[in-house]
Amino acid sequence: MIIIMKRSATDDDIERVNKKIEKMGLKAHISKGSSKTVIGVIGDVDSKIKEYDPVATLSLDKAVESVQRVSKPYKLASRESRNDDTIIDVKGVKVGGDTFTLIAGPCSVENREQVLTTARGIKKCSAHMLRGGAFKPRTSPYSFQGLGEEGLKLLKEASEETGLPVVTEVMNPKDLDVVLKYADVLQIGARNIQNFSLLKLVGQTDKPVLLKRGMATTIQEFLMSAEYVMSEGNADVMLCERGIRTFETATRNTLDISAVPVLKKETHLPVLIDPSHAAGKRDYVPALSRAAIAAGADGLLIEVHYNPQIAVSDAAQQLTIEEFCQLVDELRKIGEVVGKIIQ
Amino acid sequence: MIIIMKRSATDDDIERVNKKIEKMGLKAHISKGSSKTVIGVIGDVDSKIKEYDPVATLSLDKAVESVQRVSKPYKLASRESRNDDTIIDVKGVKVGGDTFTLIAGPCSVENREQVLTTARGIKKCSAHMLRGGAFKPRTSPYSFQGLGEEGLKLLKEASEETGLPVVTEVMNPKDLDVVLKYADVLQIGARNIQNFSLLKLVGQTDKPVLLKRGMATTIQEFLMSAEYVMSEGNADVMLCERGIRTFETATRNTLDISAVPVLKKETHLPVLIDPSHAAGKRDYVPALSRAAIAAGADGLLIEVHYNPQIAVSDAAQQLTIEEFCQLVDELRKIGEVVGKIIQ
Amino acid sequence: MIIIMKRSATDDDIERVNKKIEKMGLKAHISKGSSKTVIGVIGDVDSKIKEYDPVATLSLDKAVESVQRVSKPYKLASRESRNDDTIIDVKGVKVGGDTFTLIAGPCSVENREQVLTTARGIKKCSAHMLRGGAFKPRTSPYSFQGLGEEGLKLLKEASEETGLPVVTEVMNPKDLDVVLKYADVLQIGARNIQNFSLLKLVGQTDKPVLLKRGMATTIQEFLMSAEYVMSEGNADVMLCERGIRTFETATRNTLDISAVPVLKKETHLPVLIDPSHAAGKRDYVPALSRAAIAAGADGLLIEVHYNPQIAVSDAAQQLTIEEFCQLVDELRKIGEVVGKIIQ
Amino acid sequence: MIIIMKRSATDDDIERVNKKIEKMGLKAHISKGSSKTVIGVIGDVDSKIKEYDPVATLSLDKAVESVQRVSKPYKLASRESRNDDTIIDVKGVKVGGDTFTLIAGPCSVENREQVLTTARGIKKCSAHMLRGGAFKPRTSPYSFQGLGEEGLKLLKEASEETGLPVVTEVMNPKDLDVVLKYADVLQIGARNIQNFSLLKLVGQTDKPVLLKRGMATTIQEFLMSAEYVMSEGNADVMLCERGIRTFETATRNTLDISAVPVLKKETHLPVLIDPSHAAGKRDYVPALSRAAIAAGADGLLIEVHYNPQIAVSDAAQQLTIEEFCQLVDELRKIGEVVGKIIQ
Repeated sequence: MIIIMKRSATDDDIERVNKKIEKMGLKAHISKGSSKTVIGVIGDVDSKIKEYDPVATLSLDKAVESVQRVSKPYKLASRESRNDDTIIDVKGVKVGGDTFTLIAGPCSVENREQVLTTARGIKKCSAHMLRGGAFKPRTSPYSFQGLGEEGLKLLKEASEETGLPVVTEVMNPKDLDVVLKYADVLQIGARNIQNFSLLKLVGQTDKPVLLKRGMATTIQEFLMSAEYVMSEGNADVMLCERGIRTFETATRNTLDISAVPVLKKETHLPVLIDPSHAAGKRDYVPALSRAAIAAGADGLLIEVHYNPQIAVSDAAQQLTIEEFCQLVDELRKIGEVVGKIIQ
Repeated sequence: MIIIMKRSATDDDIERVNKKIEKMGLKAHISKGSSKTVIGVIGDVDSKIKEYDPVATLSLDKAVESVQRVSKPYKLASRESRNDDTIIDVKGVKVGGDTFTLIAGPCSVENREQVLTTARGIKKCSAHMLRGGAFKPRTSPYSFQGLGEEGLKLLKEASEETGLPVVTEVMNPKDLDVVLKYADVLQIGARNIQNFSLLKLVGQTDKPVLLKRGMATTIQEFLMSAEYVMSEGNADVMLCERGIRTFETATRNTLDISAVPVLKKETHLPVLIDPSHAAGKRDYVPALSRAAIAAGADGLLIEVHYNPQIAVSDAAQQLTIEEFCQLVDELRKIGEVVGKIIQ
Repeated sequence: MIIIMKRSATDDDIERVNKKIEKMGLKAHISKGSSKTVIGVIGDVDSKIKEYDPVATLSLDKAVESVQRVSKPYKLASRESRNDDTIIDVKGVKVGGDTFTLIAGPCSVENREQVLTTARGIKKCSAHMLRGGAFKPRTSPYSFQGLGEEGLKLLKEASEETGLPVVTEVMNPKDLDVVLKYADVLQIGARNIQNFSLLKLVGQTDKPVLLKRGMATTIQEFLMSAEYVMSEGNADVMLCERGIRTFETATRNTLDISAVPVLKKETHLPVLIDPSHAAGKRDYVPALSRAAIAAGADGLLIEVHYNPQIAVSDAAQQLTIEEFCQLVDELRKIGEVVGKIIQ
Repeated sequence: MIIIMKRSATDDDIERVNKKIEKMGLKAHISKGSSKTVIGVIGDVDSKIKEYDPVATLSLDKAVESVQRVSKPYKLASRESRNDDTIIDVKGVKVGGDTFTLIAGPCSVENREQVLTTARGIKKCSAHMLRGGAFKPRTSPYSFQGLGEEGLKLLKEASEETGLPVVTEVMNPKDLDVVLKYADVLQIGARNIQNFSLLKLVGQTDKPVLLKRGMATTIQEFLMSAEYVMSEGNADVMLCERGIRTFETATRNTLDISAVPVLKKETHLPVLIDPSHAAGKRDYVPALSRAAIAAGADGLLIEVHYNPQIAVSDAAQQLTIEEFCQLVDELRKIGEVVGKIIQ
């Protein structure tokens, strides 16, 4: 922790802050600059139970201008804690390392024909996992909310036929048990990225977790949410950037492609991209997918539907199977350039 | 719904779209402009269960440039559905109408002395309800997470002594029953504004709900979240603007003061402001509080602590009791100018 | 300047950075923490001509995690350089201190009747200065670009009749001479807030300058733009917050009302609010204006038109004279509460 | 233009709006929906000189809820006006079409050795043009502002030796003549994207213009700025995305990679990416550059310095020549996959 004192701070002010720091069991290192004094604080400023928050308390002092942390607040998720990439194994499918993983499927599970036809179609073009929503977070209470367990059963059936593991969202703690029966990867949606109760709960399972970044989640907060899952004992966390909210309305969200190299530097966890929700329009999905692999991402979470014209939700952003297959061909070749293999 | 056709659309394209509209049980009204054709669609485009989403499906047509909704997606929350202001009664405390309501208290419940001393202090300066967190949503799993039921009991004790109803946050569906035993108003935090499972659940209770806008929630989405609660049968919803996330870092968030007149126009629900979380710094809280009442808000959710120097969380943004009392004096006088009474 | 070293930094790394600092004529103060080393750098890191930028150069070192400035980059504009409020005198009209100044008028100068009728109207309701655009920055090259010098003459005529000083925008360095002939305050528009050539030029005049914050300008950058003007010798700078660009589209921009207390703390310069451009809709202007004075602003820049129905530009956001007069009554009363006088 | 009437609008209201439309020389097409009436307006709503702005005027009517444009406000820049890609020829170097163009060089021109060494270095690795700033827009008036004409001369010398055309920024109308003597492409910086005076001026020259998107410029506004240049007669405009301002601070700006496919759909003009300013950190530049070509961009504007350790400005984001050469190898291979050739 670093404390910058106000220009007007006196020696008495500095001494008082020094004493506060010592009372917290920390050590102060005082450095008087030409205009301001800076105090470096040595010791662990994080602890689960404490009488006061050192950062907040010191920032209240009338002679303190600002207080900044030095150490990263995420521990288990940090590159500093583990240098080599985490590689997650989902029933034999690898996520992370040299592999580029394709998780494809419809936005919502709608009916048996849709799920099975789509699963068979994407399987032929190298998709590694099947995605599909049975519980759907919808902005309007009057929109289709998903088929629930019936949808999960259809995903499972498609999975058993094709061998593709299932990635599906859990929104409600009370649905966790039923989702666990059918899912191979538990998806936490963007709207639940700081639903800490839910994060802790999936952290107590032994299923891999796919965390989608929220629309206004900083990269640091994103990693703190991963830390919530990991601190409960579940180390198999995949991060998924899916567009952040900005002033630009030409796309539904703004894909933060820089999040790929930034996350790769900050964490050992695999980083996926969801180009479909970022773009909101099918036309832009191939370009964003190619950008994702070129930037070093570990995979895609991508919406594909055997017949988007009749899709119940998010129809505008789903690729057809033909479009998906063509895209995979391009991704495979770009992968060769950047050292990512599509099995 | 309005469909703007591409400039290149032919008569056959227009006819095809027309037929799609009719197949959905809707009616088309075609208007050929100098450069583009616009189709007005007449009929209800919203229904809970449907084979397809009309907006998404039509936007997929190759000759369609864009599709826009005409009717507001929120119904019960809308001014169009109810012209006069909703006034919520919380154990005799009014929220909405000509009243300006002060909901004050510490960020987190820390201990008996803190809650009781603060409650007594704010009561003397006209506070109408006591706020305090027993379950705390914290970005870090290593931060203080709240006292849980022990904290709720302390709030209840302070409420019984002072007569101030209790406003406290519920984060986890499994905690709802215990929170209901102690709380008079159920607060939904900014991070849970699109936790639809939780919204439905509090919508099934008979306790008033205080909804905090998320950091990246548009006003339309905010009202849709209110609609989730209301559509389950609970009409007593208070909206609370608490700062949105922007590029500016001089304050923790950017208080969207315009949300007050916008929401007042769009909805009949009461609108509160939380200046403490928006500012993140105590120094700025009085100015934002005065702006809130001047702009026409129905009340404040404001952090006050009998001794912020020792507060466990968010110490930097909590007012002292003296500062709060002085602020209430000013607010009362501004309220007289704008027609809002502080009882 | 503070340097945070990477966790992996060795003693040799620290010594190398230490030497770099000394070579720059600065002094290092090393503080070893439990996990990272922090180096405080003492001395002036800013100088107009230099071989290298110390902050950038040091941040390039392979063992450096991050580098932060300690001293504020603005000097003349800073509260640290001048504690009492700057009060600007425009032909006898005061801006700053205990005064609340009303600068009103049409968006664009359209014709003689419009300017004169509007000027007479606002004069009756205590307006202190007349605003109006003769050179208009328009997003489209096909939109009305302003009347140019003809418009300036009409403003001057209205000013001479009513005694209201004229505030008008200068966009183009080549127009500066003609604008200087007619204007009493030179307005720099939001789109030119970092047009440094123009800022320097108005800094060389002896006319007060009204700087409008850009849509994506941080408060620090805003003050740096003021510093550009001041560093050329012109100390009479008024700052005007007019809404920033965020994800919210319910208003044209998001009025950053917190900028008022933040700027009041950081600088001695007067702070105005433009509620008209922030809102983009007339209905919201009174609420934002009341919020402005309640938050401690020093005045308003507000659009008023004697007949908005026929206005050429920004018609949707202009108040009628009656609406303006009614608003001034309310502002006067709120001003009494917060210690701001409307003469 | 489409007008959505309020739900409460009466037949008289509709008739009044109808009459206003006819008075403007436009035609109304009325469509009554289940809850609201929609009026399609037929005719050209844009014209350079007009008594009133139809959109603004109609949106003021008390029975009107909202007014929306149908036709795109940009004409010459639009794909609708020209279907095939614009290919710009800069002294034999092509920009646009199947070509991927590399514009590289230092942020600022510092001295003869720097410019010449860097130019020779990048030339060996296929760079097509030399970039470098002689007039620098700097946030602080106390920072290095560029060498001015002396810098331009050094660029010219390097250009003559290597054959690389020169891209350099013009900030100030009064510098245009001197810049024209040395530059082959006129760069308009992000801060001047809505400096309409400057845009018109470069539109009157016969030199190609490179327009950098502003930090808060929407794609529509970006195209309107191109339209300003083009409407003055200069059709050779290159667009350059360089990161937008969002809440995320892990990178200096957020590269809006989606702008590539969006712009490719909306306009026939070439689209470049500046990964250096977007990232702000050298480490992230290669990933963003690969994403750019993979997404379909027509080239890069990239900062390269023969010895970034001693660079005066933006040192942290400049690649070394070795790093640049290695990057070009990768880009060439990705280009083969996506159909873009690096000559």
